[in-house]
Amino acid sequence: MNSIPTSRDKPLFTPGPLSTSLSVKQAMLRDLGSRDEEFVAIVREIRSKLLELAGVSDGSYEAIPLQGSGTFSVEAVLSSTVPRGGKVLVLENGAYGKRMTRICEVLGIDTTVLVWHENETPDPNSVENALAADASITHVAVVHCESTTGIVNPVRGIGEVVRRFEKIYFVDAMSSFGAFPIQLAEWKIDYLVSSANKCIEGVPGFGYVLARRDHFLGTEGWARSLSMDLYDQWKALENGGRFRFTPPTHAMLAFRQALHELEEEGGVSARMKRYRNNHRVLVEGMREMGFREYLPKELQGWIITAFLHPDDPKFDFKVFYDKLSERGFLIYQGKLTDAECFRIGSIGRIFESDVRALLAAIKDTVAEMGFKLP
Amino acid sequence: MNSIPTSRDKPLFTPGPLSTSLSVKQAMLRDLGSRDEEFVAIVREIRSKLLELAGVSDGSYEAIPLQGSGTFSVEAVLSSTVPRGGKVLVLENGAYGKRMTRICEVLGIDTTVLVWHENETPDPNSVENALAADASITHVAVVHCESTTGIVNPVRGIGEVVRRFEKIYFVDAMSSFGAFPIQLAEWKIDYLVSSANKCIEGVPGFGYVLARRDHFLGTEGWARSLSMDLYDQWKALENGGRFRFTPPTHAMLAFRQALHELEEEGGVSARMKRYRNNHRVLVEGMREMGFREYLPKELQGWIITAFLHPDDPKFDFKVFYDKLSERGFLIYQGKLTDAECFRIGSIGRIFESDVRALLAAIKDTVAEMGFKLP
Repeated sequence: MNSIPTSRDKPLFTPGPLSTSLSVKQAMLRDLGSRDEEFVAIVREIRSKLLELAGVSDGSYEAIPLQGSGTFSVEAVLSSTVPRGGKVLVLENGAYGKRMTRICEVLGIDTTVLVWHENETPDPNSVENALAADASITHVAVVHCESTTGIVNPVRGIGEVVRRFEKIYFVDAMSSFGAFPIQLAEWKIDYLVSSANKCIEGVPGFGYVLARRDHFLGTEGWARSLSMDLYDQWKALENGGRFRFTPPTHAMLAFRQALHELEEEGGVSARMKRYRNNHRVLVEGMREMGFREYLPKELQGWIITAFLHPDDPKFDFKVFYDKLSERGFLIYQGKLTDAECFRIGSIGRIFESDVRALLAAIKDTVAEMGFKLP
Repeated sequence: MNSIPTSRDKPLFTPGPLSTSLSVKQAMLRDLGSRDEEFVAIVREIRSKLLELAGVSDGSYEAIPLQGSGTFSVEAVLSSTVPRGGKVLVLENGAYGKRMTRICEVLGIDTTVLVWHENETPDPNSVENALAADASITHVAVVHCESTTGIVNPVRGIGEVVRRFEKIYFVDAMSSFGAFPIQLAEWKIDYLVSSANKCIEGVPGFGYVLARRDHFLGTEGWARSLSMDLYDQWKALENGGRFRFTPPTHAMLAFRQALHELEEEGGVSARMKRYRNNHRVLVEGMREMGFREYLPKELQGWIITAFLHPDDPKFDFKVFYDKLSERGFLIYQGKLTDAECFRIGSIGRIFESDVRALLAAIKDTVAEMGFKLP
C-alpha cells in the first residue's frame, strides 16, 4: 500500500526539481477534466499571471505553456520561431548555452557561436561586432542565469544591442524567472523561456514561453515539430483555452497554487530577497569552513553556487554527497568543463533555517571525512 | 489559501486524463531529487514493470519514458527511429492515425497513407498489397484503439504481414496498453507507445516507448529533435538511470503507485474485466434509454464509446454536457468527421457504481431537456 509521508522530504539544494510547499503538492490531489471549464479557467489564470510577472499585461506578449521539461520549451522556441534560412547567434558560457547550439544543430538551423569561459559573461560589444559582421543572423540566444556555475549574464545590455540590429532576442530564463525582476519589454526580449519547477516553486511537468506578439503572430507554419509547434499550441489555447494534447493537469494545479503563494510571499522582490539571503548565509558559512566559490563574487547570482572541490585526496564527492544525504540534505554534482566543483542551490521552498541546518551537516561531514580546507 | 478537496472530484468519463485513486495522487506529496538514488531506483522499477506488462522481460525490449504528453512519445518514435530516406505507411481510421501522418509531414518524413472509414478497421490484406507495391516503405504505423470512435484495430494480424515484409512496426497503444493483453514479441511490434494517464491510471506528465532492442540500438543519431531523441534518452537512463532533462518526478511517483495498484487489482486481465464491465453496463443502460452507438458491436472496444446525437433539435450537446457536469459527471465531445457523436469513456478509476450513477444522471437530463429518443 501507499505510505503517506509524515515528515518532510530531504530539502533539495539543487537546480531543480526543487522543494515545494506541502500546499503546492496538495493542490494535486484532484483530477480535473482537461477540457472542462474549471481547468480551462485555471490555464487562463496561469497564462495571465505569467504575463503580469514579466511586466507585460498590456497585450504585447503571449504566454504559452508547453508540456515537457524546460528544455522542450527552449527547443520549441528555436524550432518554431526561427524561419527556414534563419541563423542563430548563440552566446555560450556554460552547458545550457551549449545545449541551445546542440538543439539548433539537430534541427538543422544555422548558428554562429560566441564562446566565453565559464567564469566570464558574454559582453555586449562582442555581440555588436558579430551582428555587424554577419547580416544573415536573425536571432540571438543567451541564458540568463547559467546554472552550470550560477553566473548571471547581462541580458539587458545584450538586449539593447540586439534590438538596435533589429534581430530577435531569445533568453533562456529557466533558473531566474520569478527570482529576478525581469521586464520583458524594457529588456527588449522577444522570447523568454522558463519552467514550472524553478523559482515559481511548482512541480515539473511543463515549461512556458513568453512571446512578443508582433513577431510571434508571423510564425505560423514555421515549426519543425508538431508537438513543439508553439504557434499551433497558442492557437488552440486561444480558441477555447484547450491544449492540443493532454496537459499535465496536476502539475498545472500545483503551479496555480505556487503562483498564489508567490503573491502571498510578496511577489518577485520578496522571493528574490529570501533567495539572496539563502545564498548569502550559505556562502558565508561555506567560506568560514574554508570552501571557496568557483566564480568571482561580482558575477555570482543567488540561484545556485558552484564550490571548488577541496584540494585534498581525502575529498570524494560521492562520499560527501552520500553522507549529506544520510543527514537529510541533497546537494548537486558539478557540470564544469575545467574545474572540479559541486553545486548548492538557494532556490525552492528553502529558508535560512534550512541553509543553516545544511551548513551544520556539512561541518559534521567535513570532520567525519577528515579532509583539509584552507 | 489552498483548499484541500474533501470530496471526490467529478468522475471523468473521458479519454484522459482520467480519474485516479486518491492513493495515486497522494504519492505525489513528496519532492524527490531527480538525480538521487531513491528516484533513480523508482525509474528503474517503472521501466522494468512496463516491460513485464508487455510480456517482454527477457531483455529483447527497452522501456523509455519521455517527458510530455503521449503525442510527444509518438512523435519521438517517428522522429528517432525512421532513418533519413525512410517511408512510413500510415493506416488511418480516425484522428490519431491522421495525427501520425501529420507528424511525419512536419518532420519531412515521406508517407503512404491508407485510409479507412472511421467505422472500419484497416485490413491486413490491403497492408500486404501496399507493402508488395512499394519496397521503399520502411515502417508501418497504426493506432491500436482509436479513441476517436473506440474502434479496436487488428494489430496482431497486421503485425504478421509487416514482419513477413521485414518492415518496422509501430503501434500507438495510448488508450489500450494496460487494458488489453498486448504481447509485444508475439504481435511482432517493434515500437509501442502509451502514456502515464491512460489505463495504468497514473497522472499526465510523460509517455513511454517500448522498443525492440535489435532495431532500436541501431538508431543512434537518427533523431530530428534533441528533446525527443529516444536513443539519447535511453542512453542516459542506462548510464546511471538519469534523465537528460528534468523528469516529472511527481507524475512518476504517481505512476509507480499506479503500477502497484494495477498489480493489486489483479493485473491487466482484472483491469480489462472491470473496464469491459463498465462498458457493458454503460451501453446496456444507454440503449435502454434509446441512445445508439456509432460503431457496430463487433468493432467496439471497451475503452471509450461514441454515441450518436439523438435526432431531435431539442438535443444540444453543450447543454447536455453542462447539465451532466452540474450533476457531477464529465463526459466528452465527439471527434468524428461524418457523424455527430459524443463520447463516454469506461477507463480510469471508475467502477460499475459510477457508471450506474452516470446513467441515472443522463436519464434525469434527458427528461429535463425533453428530447426524444427512439
